[in-house]
Amino acid sequence: MKPSIPKGTRDFSPIEMVKRNYIFDTIRDVFKKFGFLPIETPSMENSATLMGKYGEEGDKLIFKILNSGDFLKEADQELLANKDSKRVTSSISEKALKYDLTVPFARYVVMHQNEITFPFKRYQIQPVWRADRPQKGRYREFYQCDADVIGSNSLLNEVELIMLIDEVFTKLGVKVKILFNNRKILSGIAEEIGAPDKFHDLVYSLDVNDKLGAFGVSQEMTKRDFSIEQIEKVDDYIRKVNNKAPESFRSFSELFKNSANGQRGFEELNSVMNNFGQYDFNGVLSQENKIKLFNKLEIDISLARGLEYYTGAIFEVKVEDDRSSFTSSICGGGRYDDLTGIFGLPNMSGVGISFGADRIYDVLEEANLFPKDAEATTKLLIVDYANDIPLALSILKQVHDANISAELYPDETKKFAKQMDYAEARRIPFVVILSKSNSNEVELKDIRSGKRETISLSELVDFIK
Amino acid sequence: MKPSIPKGTRDFSPIEMVKRNYIFDTIRDVFKKFGFLPIETPSMENSATLMGKYGEEGDKLIFKILNSGDFLKEADQELLANKDSKRVTSSISEKALKYDLTVPFARYVVMHQNEITFPFKRYQIQPVWRADRPQKGRYREFYQCDADVIGSNSLLNEVELIMLIDEVFTKLGVKVKILFNNRKILSGIAEEIGAPDKFHDLVYSLDVNDKLGAFGVSQEMTKRDFSIEQIEKVDDYIRKVNNKAPESFRSFSELFKNSANGQRGFEELNSVMNNFGQYDFNGVLSQENKIKLFNKLEIDISLARGLEYYTGAIFEVKVEDDRSSFTSSICGGGRYDDLTGIFGLPNMSGVGISFGADRIYDVLEEANLFPKDAEATTKLLIVDYANDIPLALSILKQVHDANISAELYPDETKKFAKQMDYAEARRIPFVVILSKSNSNEVELKDIRSGKRETISLSELVDFIK
Repeated sequence: MKPSIPKGTRDFSPIEMVKRNYIFDTIRDVFKKFGFLPIETPSMENSATLMGKYGEEGDKLIFKILNSGDFLKEADQELLANKDSKRVTSSISEKALKYDLTVPFARYVVMHQNEITFPFKRYQIQPVWRADRPQKGRYREFYQCDADVIGSNSLLNEVELIMLIDEVFTKLGVKVKILFNNRKILSGIAEEIGAPDKFHDLVYSLDVNDKLGAFGVSQEMTKRDFSIEQIEKVDDYIRKVNNKAPESFRSFSELFKNSANGQRGFEELNSVMNNFGQYDFNGVLSQENKIKLFNKLEIDISLARGLEYYTGAIFEVKVEDDRSSFTSSICGGGRYDDLTGIFGLPNMSGVGISFGADRIYDVLEEANLFPKDAEATTKLLIVDYANDIPLALSILKQVHDANISAELYPDETKKFAKQMDYAEARRIPFVVILSKSNSNEVELKDIRSGKRETISLSELVDFIK
Repeated sequence: MKPSIPKGTRDFSPIEMVKRNYIFDTIRDVFKKFGFLPIETPSMENSATLMGKYGEEGDKLIFKILNSGDFLKEADQELLANKDSKRVTSSISEKALKYDLTVPFARYVVMHQNEITFPFKRYQIQPVWRADRPQKGRYREFYQCDADVIGSNSLLNEVELIMLIDEVFTKLGVKVKILFNNRKILSGIAEEIGAPDKFHDLVYSLDVNDKLGAFGVSQEMTKRDFSIEQIEKVDDYIRKVNNKAPESFRSFSELFKNSANGQRGFEELNSVMNNFGQYDFNGVLSQENKIKLFNKLEIDISLARGLEYYTGAIFEVKVEDDRSSFTSSICGGGRYDDLTGIFGLPNMSGVGISFGADRIYDVLEEANLFPKDAEATTKLLIVDYANDIPLALSILKQVHDANISAELYPDETKKFAKQMDYAEARRIPFVVILSKSNSNEVELKDIRSGKRETISLSELVDFIK
């Protein structure tokens, strides 16, 4: 039997783990710095919690867990006899693997509402599972790194999240562009073009702009029965706002004179953008009082984001770095006014973002941005040629007590080359060689320079430190 | 719809997360210090990798994942018609959630044998899933923390693992007893009582000693058709070795004069124990050259451990602490000579241990051993009464730049008590209060003492540090 792993899943080797942990640690540190608290939810949820929350396509991509025991006995016999795989599922599978972190978080907030102090700032770094067709950069098991503030409708949360995104990518050393929009502006556009009831059609049409451009949007809108005038007007809105100097936003509110939603969206956008040094809508703030970001923050009126639950601000982050060829989004999020309503707790506004650790990994790898020492592990290898085990162990203990990571080469072998190969493969920088038993002196080899010198045991710890 | 989570699974709140991470971080740090490298394997494995590796009972407890799409069409139609839930499973489920970390690790080693430098010291901290009946301390999703050395038969690995166990529990502040035995000694006993072919029956019988004592072992052996003489002889072996002064082990080898396996087991046990200051079998080493452990290390000849794959040393750790009522094992492991053989790579000896993070959590909680500051999170809360958002944000930025975790209270409210409640519930020690806009001074409140003082912005960072 030749062993293998399921399609779309991955093993992580020590070198990959160290790099992945570098990303998780960086994101986690920034989450903490901004006052987010960690939670974790189970890998499996009751199917009823997940089903119907991600659209029909999403339901298909949820991994279902087969009930234990005699599941066929408990199955719906009629559906089973009719070979109705889809509808019989709920009678043979009660549990499913989580598809994202947002729906389980909403479930968590409702279940624990009496223990939680609101506004509740939580972060969550956990794997999710999707039965998607695996392809480059898309896996069936992958990590999401989410931060959400729930129970506060203040736009300061949006400001903080932009600062947070800026800090994460600055720490990781990747140049990005933060795209920012507001769903109410999209409502406003729908109203201004005389199609207030086709808001979701507009959102889905705009969502293709990223991949297929203005022509794609136009095609998508045609498919969804918008008129030529409507399509042209939308295109006009996008042109007016995108690809323009920030100054031009000043006349922006005039575009929405007939739409209360549009006005409101513009005010929200304005109120957030006003805090940052890159824009100056109304001159109220002096430039020096504004927050300086290391990365670009841009309004993108065509940014729509597919998910249904967003109602206000929406974010998306793209790499804009010469060293990277990645164009897809590596972080995104937005505000939702009623995510917990589906579980019986209405009017709980929240805003959150999610970092795609796997894509960030690919970007850092391509741009060669992982820190070099992310690979270093054990500092010292002890090789015992003297066959003086008590001495070898006492050196190990002494070095460990000084909090230096160290290990014994466990197998007795006189093959020096093999042990040096081990040190090199493991990237261990120093090797202590015991050649005389009962000695107070040992040989110390520096693997990188190849230099060997005799050193007393009492000096060893200080030297390595 | 009232939301709930599946039986035997858990949500972890921020306070629980911080405590859990304290345990994981402590164990991980010690693993690293001893030169173990991290790997991760997928949550799901191909069913063929897992089935048949944990006995018939284990197979039942493995969570199976339903195939996507029209699984009934692909199912074995005859078994389906016969309602044979057990046998139809493999035709409607190709994947399963991992049941432990050891079998996936063996699969990993075989798949990646050409990239691995042996001896391979790996650690792995990941959840596993078992469809067991949930009860106190037993969950359907729980974490294992494993460290294994594979590709080395040196007994120095056993010595290092004992040092490692001792260090983990010393760091966690729990007093434990490390029980140590060797499966070859159990083989030896089976041979000495004239039942060399009933080794596994002896192992399963001894395994109940922990819970049911000598009487239970005797009953279990009777059930398994051992004679009264054999049962008495085993009891005699246990008495001779357990509950005795270490000195008495010197005559130990005489007990196995008719069994090569028993002799070998004794030599292995001796060779490991000899390195530690608590025993003195043969006087070869002077006491001062021995490793001093903070916890007790004891030979327990009745220690058997249920798992089939152990062939040499076996370990188990029990709490022995006045502050804890826990009696069940919180860490265990052993040597296996051929774990990877099932996947086509024979003769790869290894030894490993596994820490039970959930049980350790319960012990630390009961004994009140979690560090007090394990609960502290954000250091500073900024409350903006002056409605001077640029000032509030610039203070936030300034404090963050000094790497101090801080957050704005996002919602505009004049209710001072509510904001102080938030700070207290979140255990935030300091609050900055902006009461005048455009000011260079702010009020700083120390939540614990209740003291308020005026402080200049330039002093703020130093003060909090």
